[in-house]
Amino acid sequence: MSYLGVGVSPGNITVYHGGKMKLIDRRLRLTELLLRCSVTVLALIALIVVVTDTQVKHIFTIEKTAKYTDMKALVFLVVANGIAAAYSLLQSVRCVVGTMKGSVLVSKTLAWAIFSGDQAMAYLSVAAIAAATESGVIGRKGEQKLQWMKLCNMYGKFCNRMGEGVAVALLASIAMVLVSCISAFSLFRLYGAIQRPPNEAAAVK
Amino acid sequence: MSYLGVGVSPGNITVYHGGKMKLIDRRLRLTELLLRCSVTVLALIALIVVVTDTQVKHIFTIEKTAKYTDMKALVFLVVANGIAAAYSLLQSVRCVVGTMKGSVLVSKTLAWAIFSGDQAMAYLSVAAIAAATESGVIGRKGEQKLQWMKLCNMYGKFCNRMGEGVAVALLASIAMVLVSCISAFSLFRLYGAIQRPPNEAAAVK
Repeated sequence: MSYLGVGVSPGNITVYHGGKMKLIDRRLRLTELLLRCSVTVLALIALIVVVTDTQVKHIFTIEKTAKYTDMKALVFLVVANGIAAAYSLLQSVRCVVGTMKGSVLVSKTLAWAIFSGDQAMAYLSVAAIAAATESGVIGRKGEQKLQWMKLCNMYGKFCNRMGEGVAVALLASIAMVLVSCISAFSLFRLYGAIQRPPNEAAAVK
Repeated sequence: MSYLGVGVSPGNITVYHGGKMKLIDRRLRLTELLLRCSVTVLALIALIVVVTDTQVKHIFTIEKTAKYTDMKALVFLVVANGIAAAYSLLQSVRCVVGTMKGSVLVSKTLAWAIFSGDQAMAYLSVAAIAAATESGVIGRKGEQKLQWMKLCNMYGKFCNRMGEGVAVALLASIAMVLVSCISAFSLFRLYGAIQRPPNEAAAVK
């Protein structure tokens, strides 16, 4: 099916596209593809920055190495970004194939699957950022009353690089949230009521 | 405007509702109201459980009191739940007024405002839960390599009650996520393309 005005989604609903809707569809498809590619790239960069971040400290004869596996929240961030990168790569491929085929509509089942996946990924990435930020704040400022010491005065370089990793993951997360809004739009507009011109509606009234 | 089949949303689009849409609208409105009320009640319960949770320990002559202000993540959880409760209360009132007036549609501007607010609240509550859970995990299991001691062996009662508070906040958060899906539906279906019966579409093709 192409942008000829009318298309049939497999076994679901039939949708007529006006000129304005065609334009919105095209822009939306491009925005979605760009955002999904951004999520893939940003989540991968964040993952690499966090995983490769280490700092060695010599305290008398003891050698101490700080790495991301020392903090559960950072392991969670790495796993979440890995899943986000893989998921967004697959979705980007789907977007490219869809654009090449020129299909406008998806089935409701597929739209629900994409919507659910995007929602899960968006909340997962926000949760991972929040947990990592919480650990980061404790690492930087400490929790004095709980006697959890601040560590960033000792591992400054490690903390700064980790902060950069979390910042990049935050950008990926924002892109993922925007993508989830687009997939919500793509799904729920399939449930749109019939729009009538004002004069016709007035006549029915 | 009532469920008579046709209605005009202020300054936006005109929408015709068939019998099925009427039924979906009514059920959706009721579900939304119930969910918003649930968020208000659950967020308030979570807030009260967390804020009133204290435990006093006597270590020789020193008296130590554990309370939620000792952890930044719990303060964030309390603030987030307070905002969620107040927001959901206001939205519940709006829902009740809307149901009493019998209005089916909202303006696109209002629908966008509700959608944005719901999205922000859903992500805020998920972030608060994630941060509190991260602190809770450190409190329960410790971060051995960072020398952040576990505390729940010392403040067991405090930790268990805090866990209950976070669990209730999680329920509020799930309800908020569902509400955000409903408001996404309410907004984006306003952008629905014209649905035609299959025979009419075939004729156009």
